[in-house]
Amino acid sequence: MSETMKAAVLHAVGDMRIEDVPKPEVTSPDDVLIRITSVGICGSDIHFLKHGRIGNIILDKPTIMGHESAGEVVGIGSAVTRVEPGDLVAIEPGKTCRRCEFCKSGHYNLCREVVFLAAPPADGAFCEYLVWPEDFVFKMPEGMTADEGAMMEPLSVGLHAVRSAGVRGGDSVAVLGAGPIGLTTLMSAKAHGATTIIVTDVFDTRLANAKRMGATHVINVRETDPVAAIKDLTGSRGVDASFDCVGSELTLQQALQVARNQGAMQCVGNPQELLPRLPIFEIINRELTVRGTFRYVNCYPPAITLTAAGAVDVRSMVTHHFPLAETVKAMEWVDQNKDKVIKAVIHP
Amino acid sequence: MSETMKAAVLHAVGDMRIEDVPKPEVTSPDDVLIRITSVGICGSDIHFLKHGRIGNIILDKPTIMGHESAGEVVGIGSAVTRVEPGDLVAIEPGKTCRRCEFCKSGHYNLCREVVFLAAPPADGAFCEYLVWPEDFVFKMPEGMTADEGAMMEPLSVGLHAVRSAGVRGGDSVAVLGAGPIGLTTLMSAKAHGATTIIVTDVFDTRLANAKRMGATHVINVRETDPVAAIKDLTGSRGVDASFDCVGSELTLQQALQVARNQGAMQCVGNPQELLPRLPIFEIINRELTVRGTFRYVNCYPPAITLTAAGAVDVRSMVTHHFPLAETVKAMEWVDQNKDKVIKAVIHP
Amino acid sequence: MSETMKAAVLHAVGDMRIEDVPKPEVTSPDDVLIRITSVGICGSDIHFLKHGRIGNIILDKPTIMGHESAGEVVGIGSAVTRVEPGDLVAIEPGKTCRRCEFCKSGHYNLCREVVFLAAPPADGAFCEYLVWPEDFVFKMPEGMTADEGAMMEPLSVGLHAVRSAGVRGGDSVAVLGAGPIGLTTLMSAKAHGATTIIVTDVFDTRLANAKRMGATHVINVRETDPVAAIKDLTGSRGVDASFDCVGSELTLQQALQVARNQGAMQCVGNPQELLPRLPIFEIINRELTVRGTFRYVNCYPPAITLTAAGAVDVRSMVTHHFPLAETVKAMEWVDQNKDKVIKAVIHP
Amino acid sequence: MSETMKAAVLHAVGDMRIEDVPKPEVTSPDDVLIRITSVGICGSDIHFLKHGRIGNIILDKPTIMGHESAGEVVGIGSAVTRVEPGDLVAIEPGKTCRRCEFCKSGHYNLCREVVFLAAPPADGAFCEYLVWPEDFVFKMPEGMTADEGAMMEPLSVGLHAVRSAGVRGGDSVAVLGAGPIGLTTLMSAKAHGATTIIVTDVFDTRLANAKRMGATHVINVRETDPVAAIKDLTGSRGVDASFDCVGSELTLQQALQVARNQGAMQCVGNPQELLPRLPIFEIINRELTVRGTFRYVNCYPPAITLTAAGAVDVRSMVTHHFPLAETVKAMEWVDQNKDKVIKAVIHP
Repeated sequence: MSETMKAAVLHAVGDMRIEDVPKPEVTSPDDVLIRITSVGICGSDIHFLKHGRIGNIILDKPTIMGHESAGEVVGIGSAVTRVEPGDLVAIEPGKTCRRCEFCKSGHYNLCREVVFLAAPPADGAFCEYLVWPEDFVFKMPEGMTADEGAMMEPLSVGLHAVRSAGVRGGDSVAVLGAGPIGLTTLMSAKAHGATTIIVTDVFDTRLANAKRMGATHVINVRETDPVAAIKDLTGSRGVDASFDCVGSELTLQQALQVARNQGAMQCVGNPQELLPRLPIFEIINRELTVRGTFRYVNCYPPAITLTAAGAVDVRSMVTHHFPLAETVKAMEWVDQNKDKVIKAVIHP
Repeated sequence: MSETMKAAVLHAVGDMRIEDVPKPEVTSPDDVLIRITSVGICGSDIHFLKHGRIGNIILDKPTIMGHESAGEVVGIGSAVTRVEPGDLVAIEPGKTCRRCEFCKSGHYNLCREVVFLAAPPADGAFCEYLVWPEDFVFKMPEGMTADEGAMMEPLSVGLHAVRSAGVRGGDSVAVLGAGPIGLTTLMSAKAHGATTIIVTDVFDTRLANAKRMGATHVINVRETDPVAAIKDLTGSRGVDASFDCVGSELTLQQALQVARNQGAMQCVGNPQELLPRLPIFEIINRELTVRGTFRYVNCYPPAITLTAAGAVDVRSMVTHHFPLAETVKAMEWVDQNKDKVIKAVIHP
Repeated sequence: MSETMKAAVLHAVGDMRIEDVPKPEVTSPDDVLIRITSVGICGSDIHFLKHGRIGNIILDKPTIMGHESAGEVVGIGSAVTRVEPGDLVAIEPGKTCRRCEFCKSGHYNLCREVVFLAAPPADGAFCEYLVWPEDFVFKMPEGMTADEGAMMEPLSVGLHAVRSAGVRGGDSVAVLGAGPIGLTTLMSAKAHGATTIIVTDVFDTRLANAKRMGATHVINVRETDPVAAIKDLTGSRGVDASFDCVGSELTLQQALQVARNQGAMQCVGNPQELLPRLPIFEIINRELTVRGTFRYVNCYPPAITLTAAGAVDVRSMVTHHFPLAETVKAMEWVDQNKDKVIKAVIHP
Repeated sequence: MSETMKAAVLHAVGDMRIEDVPKPEVTSPDDVLIRITSVGICGSDIHFLKHGRIGNIILDKPTIMGHESAGEVVGIGSAVTRVEPGDLVAIEPGKTCRRCEFCKSGHYNLCREVVFLAAPPADGAFCEYLVWPEDFVFKMPEGMTADEGAMMEPLSVGLHAVRSAGVRGGDSVAVLGAGPIGLTTLMSAKAHGATTIIVTDVFDTRLANAKRMGATHVINVRETDPVAAIKDLTGSRGVDASFDCVGSELTLQQALQVARNQGAMQCVGNPQELLPRLPIFEIINRELTVRGTFRYVNCYPPAITLTAAGAVDVRSMVTHHFPLAETVKAMEWVDQNKDKVIKAVIHP
C-alpha cells in the first residue's frame, strides 16, 4: 500500500497529530471507497482526547478519531450496486458481524463484534479516505450536502430514541437537554408529529436553538423547576414520552417524573454515574416503560428521507467549520464553547 | 317533557321531514346538554335516506339522522367536571356499555351495545339539542370552530386507520380514494410524519383537494395504472402503509399490491361487496399485515390536538353550508356532486 | 338497612376487631351480592395492621381489610346477565370510573378514581357479604373452588407482569423472590411457555415451593451469587425476562443485570425504598425495556382459564385456613412465618 | 473436487435419479461441513417432482431435492466457533444476503437473494454431505436426535405463525388443517400456553394425530360445520387466533369467520388459488389482524429449546423411514397416503 493520506491520529491523552497514514483500498467486492469531506466533532471524540477512554473502550494504540462522516464515492468493489462513483454518501459508522443473534433479529446495534469508527482499536474518519461496506453507506438524494450527511449520525441517535419511544402524531414530549442529541431528538419528535415539545437546558443559547428547531416550549432549569413546569404545561397529565439527553441523576429523575401514566421514558444521554438513584415508584405505580437507547439501528434511511423532505433541519446544526489540519484546535474550541456551538465539522 | 326542538327525521326511504320533537334534558349526573351548531353530512346519512338500511342496521322507526356534530354546552349534570356551559365541544357519536370485554380492553369501538348517533333506532344530531355523556364530549380549545368540531368525526376515522397501521416519520403511504375519509387519512398520515403520500382517485377535482391537503403525488386511475405508478414512485419497494378508502374489490387488490414487504395494508372504506377476490399471495409471500378499521377509538383527543396545532387542516374540508330546514335538499345535492363537495355542514 | 354481618374491621394500628356491621344490599341494576367464603391474607393487609398506611393510602376511619376474595352469588341486580345465584365467583377488587383516559384505553388499573377493596376508606372482604358490579365479578367453571377463586388476585398480579414482559414459548426467565407474587409470576411464566425458569430467594422452604410449582432452577442467594449463577445457566446471555418480586435495591439491580440484551425487566415487588440506586448502563448499553406493574388489568378471565385448564396450580398455594373470628391471629401468624406459609385464607 | 457422494437429483418432472455428485467442501471460514443423516420429505419436494415448479420457482436444471435436514458436523472453517466436529445439528435451509433491508431489520425470511435448499437452482439435502454457514446451523443438545433435528423445519413454520399471531397463555386458537404444518402450529400454540386448541380436517386419522399432540377439540369438517362448532365451543366469542394451514378459499373464509373481534388470523398454508373470495366485513367490522407467514425467521433456536424441554413432541411426527436409494418410492408413497403418514424421513 504505497499511497498515503492525511489523518488526525490520537496517540495518547492530549496528543493528537495530523499525520500521513496509508490510504485504504477496496479489497472486498462490497467495499466502497469514499473521499471524506465532512466529519462532525462529537463529544466522544473530545472525551477520548481528554481521557483516553470511554467506559471499557480504551485507547491503547494510535487511532484516528471521528465518526460522523460523509463524502463522495470514488471507488467501488465488484459487487456494489447501490452507489457509484460520484455519489454523495452518508456513512453509518458501525459495521457489524451480520451473523449473531442481534444482527439477525434487527438489533445489530447490539452486535458485540461491531467495528465502530473511532472506537479504538478501530480507526475513524478524521482523514481523507475511508473504505466501508456498501450496506452501511447511504446515497443522499439531490440537494443534500456532505455537511448534512455528517449530521445523519447524531440525527439517527435522536430518531432511534423517538421511534423506540413510539412517538405519534399529536403527542407531547419533553426533551431534557438541548445539546446536539437533544436537538436531534426534538427534531425527530417533531418529524413524528409531536405537537407539544418541551425542551429544558441550563443555557439560554441552547434553548434558543431548540426553539428555532421546533420546540414549542423551553425551560431554563436554572430559573424554573422543570417538573412543575411540565406538569403545568400538560394539565398535570405529564408528557406521552420523555427523553433524558443529559445523563445526570437529576435529569433521569426528572424524566421519570414528567412522563404520563403508561408513558415512555427514554434514556438517551450517556450516564454521568454508574448507579443513579431513581424514583422507582414512578415506574411501578404509573406503569412507565423505560427504555435505553444505544446508538441506532436501521435509522440512516429514514434520517435521509426526513432530511431530504425538509421534515428536519440538520443544516442549521452545523455552526462551525475547520480544515483537517486544525482538528485539535477545533476540538478544544468546541470543548470550551458548549453553549455557543451546536456542531463543528472538519473538512478533510 | 314540554319543550320541543326542530329535527330532520327520516321516516322511510326518501321521506325525511323537518319536525318538532321533544327537546332532550339532562337526567344523569354525567350528562351534558349541547346546542348543536354544526353537523356534517356523511355518506351513511345519504345511504339511509336512499336505502333505509346499512348492512344489519335497519330504519324501522322514524329516526333523526346526522352524527358528525359539534355545538355549545348549555347544561351539565351534577357530576360533570370537564366541560361547562359556554364551552364549544365536539361530540363523539358512539356511547358504549363500559362493561364488556371490548370496553375494558381499550377497544370500545367494538362494543356490541354501543348507542351510535343516527344508527337506528338511535336518533342523531340533525336537530337543535343533544344530551350526551361527558366522556364522549370534548372541549375544543380557543380558536377552533364548531365546523372544525364536526369534522373531528371523519378525522378520527382517518386517524384511527393511520395509528392502526403504525405510520411513522419518513414513511411512504398510499391512500386509495380521495373522498372525505381518504382526505382525513392523508392528513393524518402527514401529521404522523409520512413524507411520501400518494393519493389515487377517479376525479381530478378530488385529487386537487388531496394535493392541497398534503399529498406529495396524485394519480388519476382513469389515466394511469396506480400499481405501476406507486411501484415506480417508491423504487419498486412499495409503500410502508396502504389505505383502501374506497372499498371496491379493485382498490382492495391494489392496496395489497402496493404495500411493501412486511408493510401494513389498512381496510378503511366501506366494502362494496361481501366477498371480494383478494390476492392472497401478496399477503403471505410478502408477510403483509392487513387490518380492518371500524370507526375509531380514543381518537377525539388527538384529533382535536392535531387540529388546534395546525397539523391537519379540516377547516378547508367544509365546502358547503345549509340550514337545518334544507337538510333534505343538502343531502340530495351532496349525493349528486361527489366530485365537487368535500363536506357539507348543516347548521341547526 | 337492618340486617348485619360479621366483619374484621381495622380501627387503628394493631387494633382489628370482629364486629357486626350493616350487610350490604343490591342497589344498582348491575350489582351482584356475594356471600364471601374465601379471602386470602395479603402482605398489604398485614402492613395496614402494623403501620396504618401504605404510601399515600392512610387508614383514617375503621375499615374492613381483605381483598383476595371469592364466594357464592346470592343476589343480583335487574340488569345482571353474566352470573346468577348459586354461581361461584372470583372478585376483582378494584372497581373503576369507566370514564377516564385510562379506563377507556384499556389501562383501567391506573384509574385514579378506583375503589379498591380494603384500601381505606374503601372497605374490604374480610366479612360475610359483598356487593360488587357484575363486570368485576367472574364466574368460575365447574371444578374450581372458592379458595382457588381467592387466589385469582395474586395470580393476576403475576399474570399481568408476565404479559407485560411479553414472555413467549421457549423463553428463559428469572424470578427474584419466591413469596406469593414470585410464585404466581413463575407459574404465569410457565403457563406462557417459558422453559427455563430460575427463581431466587433467601429461604430454602420457599425455593422448594418454587421448584414444586415449576421452577427449573432455584438459587438460595445466601449461598450463591444469583447474577453469576443466572449468567452461567444461560450461557452468559442472560434471561429473556427478569422479574423483581422483592422490591429491594439489591434485587432491582440484579434483575437489571441478568436480563439479556434487548430483554425485559419487570418491576413487580413493592419497593422498599424511594430512590434505589440502579445500574443505568445496563438499561442503556443493552437496550433493556424496564416496565412497572401496578396490580393488573383484564387478567381475571385468563387467570380463571389457566387455572381451570390446569396450566397453573394455585390450589397448592393455599397452605393455611382460619375462620373469620381468628383473622387477627391469622395475620400475626402469617407475619411471623413468612418462610412456612404461602397463603393463609380466611373463611367468613 | 475429486470426492463424490450420493444424491437424489430431480432432472425433470417425474425424473428423479440417485446419482454420484461432487461432495462439497469447506471453502469459507464460517462454513460447516455436515454429514446429513435425516431429511424430511415435504409437500414442496413432491410438488416439484410432479409439476417441476412452484409459483415462480422453476426446475430448469437438475437439482437435489430436500430441505428439512439434520446431521453431524464433520468439518468446520477456520472462524467457526459455535459447533465442532461430532455435534449433531439442525440445518436452517435458507441462507440470506445479510445486507438488504430485510436482513438488517430482522425479517431475513423476506430477503430476495436467499439461497434456499432445494429451491432450484439451489441444491437441497437429499444427499450425504452439505456445506452451510455456521449461523444457519444449530447445535442440538444432548438427547435430541437427527430425526427431531429434521423436524425443526416444519416446527419453525408453525412456531413463526404462532409468534406472529401473538398467542399467549390461556388463549383459544383454531388450526384449520391437520397436516404436518397444522400439527406444528398446534404444538407451537400449546407451547405458548394456548388452553383451547381446536383443530379441523377431513381425515379422522389426522384428527387423531392432532388430538394426541395436544388439540383439546377436533372437528371433522365432513360431518360438522366448523364455523358453527367453533363459535359454539367459544361461547360465540370466536378464538383469539385462527390459523389457516390448508390454503383453500373455504378454509381462509372459515379462519376469518372464527377469529374473535380484534383477534388474529394467520395465513400459513400455501394458497390453492390466486384470488380467493374473502369475507371483507369480517376483517373490517371486527377489526381482525390478518397476517401472512412466509417460512420463518429466528425460529430454530426456540424450536430446539422447546423440543429439548419436551414442550413439543416432534418425535412422534416422524412416522416413516426410507434410505436415500428409495427416495423416489418414498415420495410417491407419501403422496398417496396423506392420511396415514405425518412425516417420512430419508436417511442418506
